[in-house]
Amino acid sequence: MPQLGLLHRRAWAAFLGQLRRPPRPVCIRTVHSHSQVAEAVLTSQLKPRQEKSNFIIKTPKGTRDLSPQQMVVREKILDMVVSCFKRHGAKGLDTPAFELKEMLTEKYGEDSGLIYDLKDQGGELLSLRYDLTVPFARYLAMNKLRKMKRYHVGKVWRRESPTIVQGRYREFCQCDFDIAGQFDPMIPDAECLKIICEILSGLQLGDFLIKISWKDVRHEMVAKKGLAPEVADQIGDYVQCHGGVSLVEQMLQDPRLSQNKQALEGLGDLKLLFEYLTLFGIAEKISFDLSLARGLDYYTGVIYEAVLLQTPAQAEEEPLNVGSVAAGGRYDGLVGMFDPSGHKVPCVGLSIGVERIFSIVEQRMKAFGEKIRTTETQVFVATPQKNFLQERLKLIAELWDAGIKAELLYKNNPKLLTQLHYCENMGIPLVVIIGEQELMEGVITLRTVASREEVAIKRENLVAEIQKRLSES
Amino acid sequence: MPQLGLLHRRAWAAFLGQLRRPPRPVCIRTVHSHSQVAEAVLTSQLKPRQEKSNFIIKTPKGTRDLSPQQMVVREKILDMVVSCFKRHGAKGLDTPAFELKEMLTEKYGEDSGLIYDLKDQGGELLSLRYDLTVPFARYLAMNKLRKMKRYHVGKVWRRESPTIVQGRYREFCQCDFDIAGQFDPMIPDAECLKIICEILSGLQLGDFLIKISWKDVRHEMVAKKGLAPEVADQIGDYVQCHGGVSLVEQMLQDPRLSQNKQALEGLGDLKLLFEYLTLFGIAEKISFDLSLARGLDYYTGVIYEAVLLQTPAQAEEEPLNVGSVAAGGRYDGLVGMFDPSGHKVPCVGLSIGVERIFSIVEQRMKAFGEKIRTTETQVFVATPQKNFLQERLKLIAELWDAGIKAELLYKNNPKLLTQLHYCENMGIPLVVIIGEQELMEGVITLRTVASREEVAIKRENLVAEIQKRLSES
Repeated sequence: MPQLGLLHRRAWAAFLGQLRRPPRPVCIRTVHSHSQVAEAVLTSQLKPRQEKSNFIIKTPKGTRDLSPQQMVVREKILDMVVSCFKRHGAKGLDTPAFELKEMLTEKYGEDSGLIYDLKDQGGELLSLRYDLTVPFARYLAMNKLRKMKRYHVGKVWRRESPTIVQGRYREFCQCDFDIAGQFDPMIPDAECLKIICEILSGLQLGDFLIKISWKDVRHEMVAKKGLAPEVADQIGDYVQCHGGVSLVEQMLQDPRLSQNKQALEGLGDLKLLFEYLTLFGIAEKISFDLSLARGLDYYTGVIYEAVLLQTPAQAEEEPLNVGSVAAGGRYDGLVGMFDPSGHKVPCVGLSIGVERIFSIVEQRMKAFGEKIRTTETQVFVATPQKNFLQERLKLIAELWDAGIKAELLYKNNPKLLTQLHYCENMGIPLVVIIGEQELMEGVITLRTVASREEVAIKRENLVAEIQKRLSES
Repeated sequence: MPQLGLLHRRAWAAFLGQLRRPPRPVCIRTVHSHSQVAEAVLTSQLKPRQEKSNFIIKTPKGTRDLSPQQMVVREKILDMVVSCFKRHGAKGLDTPAFELKEMLTEKYGEDSGLIYDLKDQGGELLSLRYDLTVPFARYLAMNKLRKMKRYHVGKVWRRESPTIVQGRYREFCQCDFDIAGQFDPMIPDAECLKIICEILSGLQLGDFLIKISWKDVRHEMVAKKGLAPEVADQIGDYVQCHGGVSLVEQMLQDPRLSQNKQALEGLGDLKLLFEYLTLFGIAEKISFDLSLARGLDYYTGVIYEAVLLQTPAQAEEEPLNVGSVAAGGRYDGLVGMFDPSGHKVPCVGLSIGVERIFSIVEQRMKAFGEKIRTTETQVFVATPQKNFLQERLKLIAELWDAGIKAELLYKNNPKLLTQLHYCENMGIPLVVIIGEQELMEGVITLRTVASREEVAIKRENLVAEIQKRLSES
């Protein structure tokens, strides 16, 4: 499935930009006068500052690093998205980051100019993948698979022009779910819409609406050049409308549309789709809307896009631009473009706009002053005395071996206050303290960071006691 | 951390190759005569077969798709590796797939020729990342971070020549853990070795050994050109030896080595390292071995590589090539190469050879005939009658909304046998059956696939009953 519309990409990037630490351009030049870099690194004979002035440390234009804070938010959201895909019986799949250039040719229409090509270094001509849909279709055709329900989470790359549309990222994550195969009409399509609803509801991003269009109907009504202008104008009225099954029924009654076979079939299927959406309990979230103009070239039937209806902004939050957070549709012809005999494998799928969602969630956490823990450490091993490194190392190995997440400071003789401050800063809930007193008595002091309460635990009971406390919390 | 040695990559690729479905080259040509591909897809006016003869559907040389089976194995192994990294307090980090070309310049010595460059499409000159270590160093320098403990799981790309060294993949996954910062000697280094031991023990790959060398000592003894040949020969004796702390102490006593400041310091630190390894209970897994010649240019101190000592092959399995499954070392100069003032941030880290491990585990599962479930579906919704699609859709939505992983066939009127076969093939443990009888009585039949036992459950108790059964299993 392709990434979401323009609005989406502009909006999320702007918010993400507020959150992340901006790259600080500093100047450096490579140590190119050294013929043996090994020696250069070994002896660190680096050039003095003034010789490094035309080298800026940065990530490539349109890309960024993801900080530990951002990674935590991503991991949580991706876990939720993937668990929904698995709830619907999808298998995982991965494809290479690059494809043969010719695999991507003539799949993206005017967007083809945004494909990253690799340099010809001898061998095949390669391009970075532009979405996860075309590689999926290539996989199906290559392995002669006639059906498959798969999800794919991965990066894609597009040479958007950041100077023209500020904040469009050139590397971003896609989360796709697709159903390939010849099935009875609209059942997989309805499931895709159900999945979008489950994910957006589960993430609690506020109210949302999924706009649906139909490529054939839209094509008939909007794009087809052969229509007499007055007829086009007449049926073009519907483009202004949006609604549920009643609008679809109204259009089915209209002879201007029912005379066209493709449009009629499309509307019939849409009516069926709305029946299934009603059974799924999500019909009120879906609106038929011919003004929806999204979709890459490969779409063939129903196409959809989910938008947030209200900003999740509370009084405490910055106002948010509302944009597309999920999209997808049917592409029945794409696999056939790869198949030598043109065998078609009908497909329908969806893509969750996780980048946009990441930034909304990040912004919300920031607005509420939620501190994000970037580590999961449960226990810190401390000492109040000098020369206790050996005891600390023995103790922490015991914890690690018991599966407990534990840290210590990499210092021979750290100050106790430094150690306790570290725990408070990092949100580590428990500290085990070993010193002369404890060693003498065969105990360990177990300290709860929040309450500062301390108890002595017999050394041999320590692991069990910690595990008990962690399982209770 | 760089990927593992030659042996590693050769070996795992060979095994992986046995497991995966080989690409089936078929012929197709792009539909380049269509100026409007949208129309081509829409109307599926595909060229007949004979015109597609010079187009082969494949992945780029040295790359492959990962099938659902492979993805399941990977997910399990990566979960284990990442949970170990988190147990040691590491934060997550991600960097772009490509870097400015100049960031990678002069970091890899003679391996630089293996870097993938992107085509100059106007703008910056870019290269795909070659490992995760150089991007980490760039991140530290760019953000002026003086310390950080992070892990990173991601793909890297190297233009290995598959024709010369058969089976080397050009895209592969790395799992790195690194500790950056100025700390007391050898504490982080020892933790890195502990992590390798925990992961390799946890994965039950059989017995293993970690070989350690020391770049400075090795350089003094093996590489330094200034030494008189007879002296080089004499101390070169040690290159034949390998052992634990006793060998290190023997070398420390040797005036030929103790007269050299760098070698002396290195040996002193190695002795300290062995002390810590003893406290961690892993000293017997570590062997000092100057014959170890691995390591990219940027290494500066201790370097190590873990090898499996015995094949995990049982009588039922194919024999396995034993190779390197983890590697790492110290690189104190790399961050300084990016810093404008040459400020050094000492680093030590490790890389788990997950590709090799994937293939060992896959092969073992295959040898033992373990069937890998590629979906996690818990319940299948079936019907024995026609015209029950609506009831099935209502029912499955209820299950999904309760968080239960559920599937149905996308057919209006599937045969019961087809539905039950699907469950057996896919390993789905439970089936809920709704038909006329059930509808009339307000119940659902709950069938256990393994025992074929069926019970009637009141419709309103169904979700609770399923959740109870799933929590018990």
